Amino acid sequence: MIEGELREDLHIKWDRMRSEMRAMGIEACLLSVDVNLYYATGRVYNGYFYLSIEDEPWFFIKRPNGYSGERVVYIRKPEELPERFAERHIRMPRSLLLEADELSYTEYMRLFSIFRPEKAENATRFSRKLRQVKTPLEIKRFRISARKHEATYREIPACFRPGMTDIELQIEIERRMRKNGSIGLFRAFGANMDIYMGSLLAGANAEEPSPFDFALGGGGLDASCPLGANGTVLKDGTAVMVDMAGNYTAYMTDMTRVFSVGRLPDEAYRAHQVALAIQAEIANAARPGSACSELYDIAARIAEREGLSDNFMGTKQQAKFVGHGIGIQINELPVLTPRSKEVLEPNMVFALEPKFVIPGVGAVGIENSFLVTDTGVEKLTVFEEEIIPLDK
Amino acid sequence: MIEGELREDLHIKWDRMRSEMRAMGIEACLLSVDVNLYYATGRVYNGYFYLSIEDEPWFFIKRPNGYSGERVVYIRKPEELPERFAERHIRMPRSLLLEADELSYTEYMRLFSIFRPEKAENATRFSRKLRQVKTPLEIKRFRISARKHEATYREIPACFRPGMTDIELQIEIERRMRKNGSIGLFRAFGANMDIYMGSLLAGANAEEPSPFDFALGGGGLDASCPLGANGTVLKDGTAVMVDMAGNYTAYMTDMTRVFSVGRLPDEAYRAHQVALAIQAEIANAARPGSACSELYDIAARIAEREGLSDNFMGTKQQAKFVGHGIGIQINELPVLTPRSKEVLEPNMVFALEPKFVIPGVGAVGIENSFLVTDTGVEKLTVFEEEIIPLDK
Repeated sequence: MIEGELREDLHIKWDRMRSEMRAMGIEACLLSVDVNLYYATGRVYNGYFYLSIEDEPWFFIKRPNGYSGERVVYIRKPEELPERFAERHIRMPRSLLLEADELSYTEYMRLFSIFRPEKAENATRFSRKLRQVKTPLEIKRFRISARKHEATYREIPACFRPGMTDIELQIEIERRMRKNGSIGLFRAFGANMDIYMGSLLAGANAEEPSPFDFALGGGGLDASCPLGANGTVLKDGTAVMVDMAGNYTAYMTDMTRVFSVGRLPDEAYRAHQVALAIQAEIANAARPGSACSELYDIAARIAEREGLSDNFMGTKQQAKFVGHGIGIQINELPVLTPRSKEVLEPNMVFALEPKFVIPGVGAVGIENSFLVTDTGVEKLTVFEEEIIPLDK
Repeated sequence: MIEGELREDLHIKWDRMRSEMRAMGIEACLLSVDVNLYYATGRVYNGYFYLSIEDEPWFFIKRPNGYSGERVVYIRKPEELPERFAERHIRMPRSLLLEADELSYTEYMRLFSIFRPEKAENATRFSRKLRQVKTPLEIKRFRISARKHEATYREIPACFRPGMTDIELQIEIERRMRKNGSIGLFRAFGANMDIYMGSLLAGANAEEPSPFDFALGGGGLDASCPLGANGTVLKDGTAVMVDMAGNYTAYMTDMTRVFSVGRLPDEAYRAHQVALAIQAEIANAARPGSACSELYDIAARIAEREGLSDNFMGTKQQAKFVGHGIGIQINELPVLTPRSKEVLEPNMVFALEPKFVIPGVGAVGIENSFLVTDTGVEKLTVFEEEIIPLDK
């Protein structure tokens, strides 16, 4: 069912998966969550991907109809798997990886009782670990997303009309995103990560805490989704932080720019320069072997030195990270956080987002997506980094 | 933390929850999934809602900062709960409902090992059962969604330009939705229910099977989200089925209308009339006490009688339901499916969607949201039901 460039990409991934399973002393993995299926098969289906250390993968599919291939097996329910395994002389694994952090308890127990492995380990941790180091095809897709992400941001000043609210501006940006090829879905890992197309924060709303684990909050428009734009009028002296999704391929870039309406207070421009300095210093330090905790510390130290600790990554509620891995989900590994034990490796891709909230004005700062190269990092999202006036 | 109309609404829900727990012989429930928190507290936060049969609820909150109230308790992690319980003389429950179909295996086991109940039952099933019968405030919100949903559909012909593709039309509709107050998020229950703002299907794409459990499929624009519009040009003779979300409040209406470009083949108009007849017959039969399976059978019988069974709810892949409960999620209970054991009750709200796929032309049919009254059903979404020409 798979051809060409994608086939090559999947073989790289399957080889890595088998190596990792061998290192873990595990015989096989069974994946069924959308993002893991997309990673392992290049598509999303309703069913299972099964890979053992000793064999090529099997694709067990419930829906959609119409796939073919010698290793494609249609099933109605997972309880059929042992019989399908037996017919094809696939050995039932004694140790198995199941997506413990993604499958519901009910679904996990169902699969566990079908396979009854002597040992079960966490396929979510396995897959998130592997997914953080990107393949050439994945990096190519990030580059496509980056170009379209930049193109959309270039159109933002044309979306602005005096007297607009934050959400009115966001709606126009969403339309440009879609016209530039945004696939719409914004995938995040974990519960309570509700978001729609990204975040646009202006004025006092930038201080509002949100329940979610994003860098900044915002009150949102409805109690059922308390995040982002809240109807703030974009009046003179307002900073508008645009952090809209880079979901132009399944591999999302992450990029934030700040726009201004009228002249902002001097402290906003100054804090913005501090954010740019943090970005420059971290980008300069980051390379294979860099400890993510130390990269965070660079940011915290500069914020402190500049007297901006109380504004760093929020005010009323402060996020305890300055960057995060990106990929099929917006919050992949590694995380640039004080207690991280992670270390950068070549072909990791992460977003770096030093931001400051200026009460009553809005948020300033920067976010770009970076690829870890053999010797340092490459900025994937290239676009004007100063505060951009909307009303010129 | 809660006032006025919402307070009254929540008291109705808490009373129902306690009654249901008493009937189940369960002492308490612990909820933490976004939709259940919204149902039980009127907002989404990162934390837990705890309700026992003998007491008022407790709100244990991790984020956001800033809530207050005598029953609001801030925690950093769930492991603190036993201590917080002890300090407040809350008895640890011997039997407990946990969200088994929604929490990840890891999170479920974590909570289970903190509470160590002698008996744990499924809070997902509990909550989905309760949530299917709506409160007055919930119904009021459906009515708000319905008015805005209708307003958006009224604007659809103005979105059309000759030569457009399906996705170009969808983008313009999305913009109108957002301007009319769509909150963006489209919540669905269960894994593998990826969708963005709804579905627009035109021409041959209406036949394409999708992995997801929606009424119809469509190939989509990217392998990472194989559903809906796929870039089909809206040329003469094409039926355009618009099934975009009614997410104008947290309570989503569901509504489908068919639009035409040029003159469609006669069989499309005929099948559309059959769908309208199915809707009329089911709406006429439906009342408290109606078996959902029998309502499905009405649809299947008419489709069969009219020689349209092979086109009913798809061709290459056919959905086995003709309606479904709606609410905070688009796929609530009950489900109008052949093997359903569910029976309609007053204040249930469901979408009824008899649809036929005409190969090469598109999909025709209808979908509306219905409220079960004491004696029958009331159509909540009122708008032109014939096929609407886009190019007049």
